[in-house]
Amino acid sequence: MNPADGDIFEIALDKNIANYRALSPIDFLRWASHVFGDRVGVVYDGRRLSYRAFAERCRRLASALVRLGIGEGDTVAVMCPNIPPMLEAHYGVPLAGAVLNALNIRLDAAAIAFILDHGEADVLLTDSAFSPVIRQALARVQRPIRVIDILDPAEPGEPLGEMDYEAFLETGDPDFPWRLPEDEWRALSLCYTSGTTGNPKGVVYHHRGAYLNALGNALVLGLRPDSVYLWTLPMFHCNGWTYTWGVTAVGATHLCLRKVDPARIFALVAEEGVTHMCGAPIVLNMLIHAPDSVKRKFAQRVEVATGGAAPPSAVIEAMEAMGFHVTHLYGLTETYGPSTVCVEQPGWRELPVPDRAAKVARQGVAYPTLGELQVADPETLEPVPADGRTIGEIMLRGHTIMKGYVKNPGATAEAFRGGWYHTGDLAVMHPDGYAEVKDRSKDIIISGGENISSLEVEEVLYRHPAVMEAAVVAKPDPTWGETPCAFVAPKAGARVTAEEIIAFCRANMAGYKVPKTVVFGELPKTSTGKIQKFELRERARRLAAEENGDG
Amino acid sequence: MNPADGDIFEIALDKNIANYRALSPIDFLRWASHVFGDRVGVVYDGRRLSYRAFAERCRRLASALVRLGIGEGDTVAVMCPNIPPMLEAHYGVPLAGAVLNALNIRLDAAAIAFILDHGEADVLLTDSAFSPVIRQALARVQRPIRVIDILDPAEPGEPLGEMDYEAFLETGDPDFPWRLPEDEWRALSLCYTSGTTGNPKGVVYHHRGAYLNALGNALVLGLRPDSVYLWTLPMFHCNGWTYTWGVTAVGATHLCLRKVDPARIFALVAEEGVTHMCGAPIVLNMLIHAPDSVKRKFAQRVEVATGGAAPPSAVIEAMEAMGFHVTHLYGLTETYGPSTVCVEQPGWRELPVPDRAAKVARQGVAYPTLGELQVADPETLEPVPADGRTIGEIMLRGHTIMKGYVKNPGATAEAFRGGWYHTGDLAVMHPDGYAEVKDRSKDIIISGGENISSLEVEEVLYRHPAVMEAAVVAKPDPTWGETPCAFVAPKAGARVTAEEIIAFCRANMAGYKVPKTVVFGELPKTSTGKIQKFELRERARRLAAEENGDG
Repeated sequence: MNPADGDIFEIALDKNIANYRALSPIDFLRWASHVFGDRVGVVYDGRRLSYRAFAERCRRLASALVRLGIGEGDTVAVMCPNIPPMLEAHYGVPLAGAVLNALNIRLDAAAIAFILDHGEADVLLTDSAFSPVIRQALARVQRPIRVIDILDPAEPGEPLGEMDYEAFLETGDPDFPWRLPEDEWRALSLCYTSGTTGNPKGVVYHHRGAYLNALGNALVLGLRPDSVYLWTLPMFHCNGWTYTWGVTAVGATHLCLRKVDPARIFALVAEEGVTHMCGAPIVLNMLIHAPDSVKRKFAQRVEVATGGAAPPSAVIEAMEAMGFHVTHLYGLTETYGPSTVCVEQPGWRELPVPDRAAKVARQGVAYPTLGELQVADPETLEPVPADGRTIGEIMLRGHTIMKGYVKNPGATAEAFRGGWYHTGDLAVMHPDGYAEVKDRSKDIIISGGENISSLEVEEVLYRHPAVMEAAVVAKPDPTWGETPCAFVAPKAGARVTAEEIIAFCRANMAGYKVPKTVVFGELPKTSTGKIQKFELRERARRLAAEENGDG
Repeated sequence: MNPADGDIFEIALDKNIANYRALSPIDFLRWASHVFGDRVGVVYDGRRLSYRAFAERCRRLASALVRLGIGEGDTVAVMCPNIPPMLEAHYGVPLAGAVLNALNIRLDAAAIAFILDHGEADVLLTDSAFSPVIRQALARVQRPIRVIDILDPAEPGEPLGEMDYEAFLETGDPDFPWRLPEDEWRALSLCYTSGTTGNPKGVVYHHRGAYLNALGNALVLGLRPDSVYLWTLPMFHCNGWTYTWGVTAVGATHLCLRKVDPARIFALVAEEGVTHMCGAPIVLNMLIHAPDSVKRKFAQRVEVATGGAAPPSAVIEAMEAMGFHVTHLYGLTETYGPSTVCVEQPGWRELPVPDRAAKVARQGVAYPTLGELQVADPETLEPVPADGRTIGEIMLRGHTIMKGYVKNPGATAEAFRGGWYHTGDLAVMHPDGYAEVKDRSKDIIISGGENISSLEVEEVLYRHPAVMEAAVVAKPDPTWGETPCAFVAPKAGARVTAEEIIAFCRANMAGYKVPKTVVFGELPKTSTGKIQKFELRERARRLAAEENGDG
């Protein structure tokens, strides 16, 4: 306004070591071990580690890695279920300056070998229960990798490496200095997508994004210092959706869990006062369909965040009846896990259950720490009208989006085209500003020129009392182009016919959406527990070919 | 480890518009108005603004300022109590790209004129209740300033400016685009210290620091979307300790309050379901000593954060008896308000009240979003032992420390010497890692070579049933160098003698710490409500001179 002034706020007011610091989740552990040093930080298998003891183990790990020659730009891979060493790697590896590459423990040897080579792993910490597959993988790997065995008495296996994890920690210094990266944009973690086709892509997270998404989790789920977080979500999955860091950020307790076993989960919820947990809808389904003999009553309300697929209304309802409160999150590996949340609005509680469940099943709004979300035309980037009908692609941008794909500038540029991260998920925007995924681009079924959302058909199938799991894909059809084909896994002991399923659908949806074909049997799953729709699409194609006499 | 690898995590993984965004509290309002558009965002004097309506007013303000020619590097000063326009300025001004300079409404014309000149104010928004002092200030100011009057029917005054605030908003666009600063390090706000001697210094905040401190507040006090925050703390005080932004960050409700009036506060707590509030101990004291006729019962537990001075045990106890829960924060203008918190540990609840109060009266540990705190030797920067006895200076560094003092590189460099922000507060570090302020450097009384903490003596005085307020300073003494001199404001209607006070002290502290002199009367306060110790020190000096026949 007074151009002669110059900008007085930018002169001699630079960053310095006193007023600027890199954002890094390493600071959460430093803080928790100072403030809650005596409080229980990590619980596993009857053992309780104070935050002080936990931090000392993480610092030993960092120190031991540094003594091994590990530092900036190096990669430490970990093959481990949700037990303390996995959590320790989330702090010890970055504290050493290196990048953590948590491997999906369900992968086969070929995929693991690909990742170890592509991610340029220098060290592998591996739980000995996975020694058979790791041995095969290492035989294929092209580079030298130092191997440390994690020996968990709960599931012993043959050691493969040069030293066991506990002995390795002994070589480290429990007073290893707290160091932050010089730049908060530096890589923290590397997570490979499960990629249904082609080679997986290596998603790179930076320290700043992990810090902010962790705080976002604490705000969204209301984590407090007296919260108890049960590790039902794999830590190898987007670093446990960054809860590995978020739980520590508030000084809450990590309750480790080697295997997702409903009996054990119910026991821990009842006995350890679990307040928070996360998991895909399939985990919720397992709890719901657990035998009555293992179900337990508990006094507290347990906050459950679910994502990866929309929770069917029946799942939401059944979980709440047992004392859980379900919050629906949405995100992808590329977004540090959750990047949207279906925030519960005042008044929803009073709605009839199906109406409320329909609201909760939506993906919702941007995380407070994300930045921006739009549902837009993938080509023009124009947002669709908020009419709950017009389909567009969910696009995100902001603080908690990956650096990009490692050694894959083409895929990175493609993911970020037009200045937005393209999720590939097709959605509508509702008038209340909540986004709802209607389908993965390739999951839309186009029948007689009408778009059919396979999710919508599945939602109805899940309401049928005999259905345990269901998936709907397009089946080629000479008349309609495509028709919906339902694959159904019935509940144990249930008896149901295709005709009954079709009649049930007809009573609950528009005629053109009703599956023309119903196939019973177990559903194929990816290593992360997602139903393999591409495999079902293949089966549907073969079925169509046989029917038309091409098979 | 494999030097040939290069750093694969730094190649073609740069920041871009999709994965990098400036941290700014502007985003909180954008988010809250999207997610909680229909929910009540701001309440004042019976009027309720939804977050949508509130955001529209902020966007109008930004737009109107831009149309006036205001933009980057410009300063908008505001003289206004805790009413909606003050809150709107916290979003509208930065959204216009300008820097907010909230003036202490208790300042005199000379101080205001100095600040408007020094801070290079281009626009002044001023509540007409302050027209008399502002008119005098403007008469002294050396630069052209455009003046907009805020006319609050609750306390009308004569307008001074070219337009009233509501008409000014009308000139703005309610759909003004959400813009963030290009760099999160850009200046957001300018707050002048109350500086007991010399000219006040202009503390500059950046967007990043305000964003992080606001999230820190939400985590520390447990703000949730259904929280109701009562504005008992002046918003001109470190931007309301960044609660101006923190409350919005979670979509909670701002309950505005023009004046700190105990009757009104109790009524709002009972009728509006207040869950959170902040204030100096003097505000708590006003609530405690309010007449029974205005005190109200309420069902909820109200979280009260206090700071600026340690809350005396008696205050903590009395507040809890009324249904408030007191959390002790500590910070300075230079640290965006609160930068430490006395986190309540498990087990404290079970302690006898005096023991618990002694713990809560400590300044505590670093905010989760701060970075680092140390109590150290001011010269060597060596941390003192955590023995609860050795005195050092509290030093802070991290995310939520000011950019520096505007147009004062010398003071900035001095504040940041050695890579730490020097608070000037003397403290000990307890074995549990909690810091406790023993005194401002200049508040230590040195008597016969022994250091006496004036705070410690005051703590005892506050426990005397007849004492409303007390302050202790050094009085020059020919024998001892200095002796403690107590200034005491008795409770209304209480009768007490100097001898009784001295006897009470003698029963409760070491003999050398007992005040040799007790003076009764009202205590002088700074414009921010702090007791003016420098004024009391002056009185004590005069008293000593008279006694020694020099007067």
